[in-house]
Amino acid sequence: MTSLADLPIRDDLRGREPYGAPQLDVPVALNTNENPYPPSERLVKAIGEAAAAAAAGLNRYPDRDATALREDLAAFLNADTPGAGLTARHVWAANGSNEIIQQILQAFGGPGRTALGFEPSYSMHPIITRVTATAWVNAHRDEDFGIDPDAAVAAIERHRPDVVFLTSPNNPTGTALPPKVIEAVLDAAPGMVVVDEAYAEFRREGSPSALTLLPGRPRLIVTRTMSKAFAMAGTRLGYLAADPAVVDALLLVRLPYHLSAVTQAVARTALAHGDELLATVELLRRERDDLVAWLRREGLTAADSDANFVLFGTFPDRRRIWQGLLDRGVLIREVGPPEWLRVSVGTPEEMAAFRTAFKEIL
Amino acid sequence: MTSLADLPIRDDLRGREPYGAPQLDVPVALNTNENPYPPSERLVKAIGEAAAAAAAGLNRYPDRDATALREDLAAFLNADTPGAGLTARHVWAANGSNEIIQQILQAFGGPGRTALGFEPSYSMHPIITRVTATAWVNAHRDEDFGIDPDAAVAAIERHRPDVVFLTSPNNPTGTALPPKVIEAVLDAAPGMVVVDEAYAEFRREGSPSALTLLPGRPRLIVTRTMSKAFAMAGTRLGYLAADPAVVDALLLVRLPYHLSAVTQAVARTALAHGDELLATVELLRRERDDLVAWLRREGLTAADSDANFVLFGTFPDRRRIWQGLLDRGVLIREVGPPEWLRVSVGTPEEMAAFRTAFKEIL
Repeated sequence: MTSLADLPIRDDLRGREPYGAPQLDVPVALNTNENPYPPSERLVKAIGEAAAAAAAGLNRYPDRDATALREDLAAFLNADTPGAGLTARHVWAANGSNEIIQQILQAFGGPGRTALGFEPSYSMHPIITRVTATAWVNAHRDEDFGIDPDAAVAAIERHRPDVVFLTSPNNPTGTALPPKVIEAVLDAAPGMVVVDEAYAEFRREGSPSALTLLPGRPRLIVTRTMSKAFAMAGTRLGYLAADPAVVDALLLVRLPYHLSAVTQAVARTALAHGDELLATVELLRRERDDLVAWLRREGLTAADSDANFVLFGTFPDRRRIWQGLLDRGVLIREVGPPEWLRVSVGTPEEMAAFRTAFKEIL
Repeated sequence: MTSLADLPIRDDLRGREPYGAPQLDVPVALNTNENPYPPSERLVKAIGEAAAAAAAGLNRYPDRDATALREDLAAFLNADTPGAGLTARHVWAANGSNEIIQQILQAFGGPGRTALGFEPSYSMHPIITRVTATAWVNAHRDEDFGIDPDAAVAAIERHRPDVVFLTSPNNPTGTALPPKVIEAVLDAAPGMVVVDEAYAEFRREGSPSALTLLPGRPRLIVTRTMSKAFAMAGTRLGYLAADPAVVDALLLVRLPYHLSAVTQAVARTALAHGDELLATVELLRRERDDLVAWLRREGLTAADSDANFVLFGTFPDRRRIWQGLLDRGVLIREVGPPEWLRVSVGTPEEMAAFRTAFKEIL
């Protein structure tokens, strides 16, 4: 039998393992920061109808530029951040924000170029960076998981990265980034600055989106996703807002017809039902704050979170806790700094199951 | 206003234009080799139902490995090519065969590596090669658009490519490749050999699929798509068959959850209605053969075609012919060698419109 090692794969891929949290069938899945609330019957019906309408023309290629969807996404962002003033020309969409990130690195990274991020952070940033043959530099976060602007500027001046990844809120720590950090990075960075806002809709009051910084900053890219607050992880729809020239750059590297006619139709239907989907955000925020308070009452450390998950610890043997929870039907994520664990915020029933299982283990 | 030239894009992208045929709204679209027959009402209904069923769980991520879909694709290939003996482990799927090709180049190409193809051929092969920072070598086709095995072997021995692209039938010429050419290339190639069979279902009798060559050849990859014969261009579903070790390699570079839950459900529904969809293949083959005969009767040169399009010429000013047809509501493709044009095979009514418009111009 042929094994992977027998094939002429790229040298830098040799010995690597595929990325991915285990996909296990468990009663309580709190491991991938999904929104626990499924679409309503009304929305399910609307999605079926939209897919059938698209199906009537599936023998034809989709709109390559996804113009109607990008108009809808711009309208959503303008409502999310009043004054953003975005149009379809400022927005680009792809199959999940992973594909958005890949396109950014294909256009602005590549051989001889460098991307820099502040770890612990979203683990796909360095992975996609390496797949696109871009060098990766880790400029570390503080002990409290924040980014010190002076330290960030110093790292940027030292490495002169072509792409900088910021995250707000950050995964897996939940940490939001004050605008002054983003501004300091933008002023210092010689290349593009990506602010990954996958969890932005969950942010607490007083934590503005980086969308407010876009006017006059053509090297700033803000990425978003419909996987989290929008409860559409299965749809795979990531997007960005930026200067229209950035969208022009991505057109040079995007795979033509990358976004299917059905994906475009389903995403537009979800956006049209945005009020229903985003109504879950307030529930999840409250559940998150309760979870942080509960963990702290239990004597644990829990990082402040602006997202729909909480990083908590510390456990000299985190694998024992993770396995103990899994044995009780609760799947969380072994990720981030050693001795910490990440739990996604679920329904009240799911969080009760988490708390019960957790107390049994301790 | 910021322009693309002001942004720090990769040097090798500077001055390039985005790929893509014009997406124009015309009465008769014969430019992108789509299948002109839309899904039946029965299939449209089934797709709507499948999408609604998937929608009920869209808050969750899709099956990352698309196992059920890969089982269905393996079953289809085993029926298409008896004796192929494929399982889900031999099959991989992505958003169009473009993404399949990109993943192959990310795993087996990259900086310092080379891919080789025989042009004129599918223009995305060199484009995706360059986006993945792989060098491209064009080993030319013969004057009759075939590939001479001795010349192919000589080119491979000279350039030692990490990836070789073959196409059967070839786009835009329609030329099928005899198995002896593929075998000669496989014997000579030091790296992976991709046989792009996007149009394989349209091939004429006596032109076997490269699937028959897979056993014992772990460096052979056969790619397929549901965009053409399957009449599912809007679904964006490309796939490959290869040794399971090749699939393992692609897992190292694929974006996690790249294939949406809805795409998986729609593709599976289309495969379950495969008999209906593939029933159009025989109609299109006959229409193609009639078209070739008609063009030759008109005194033109038409390349032999095993696909659902015909390359014909020669025209010292092909732009005039293309524009004249467009002025009459018929959109074909200005592609391939100078002085030639490519027309997709449509319905009998569409081909009558093409012939009428064409005679008006000549």
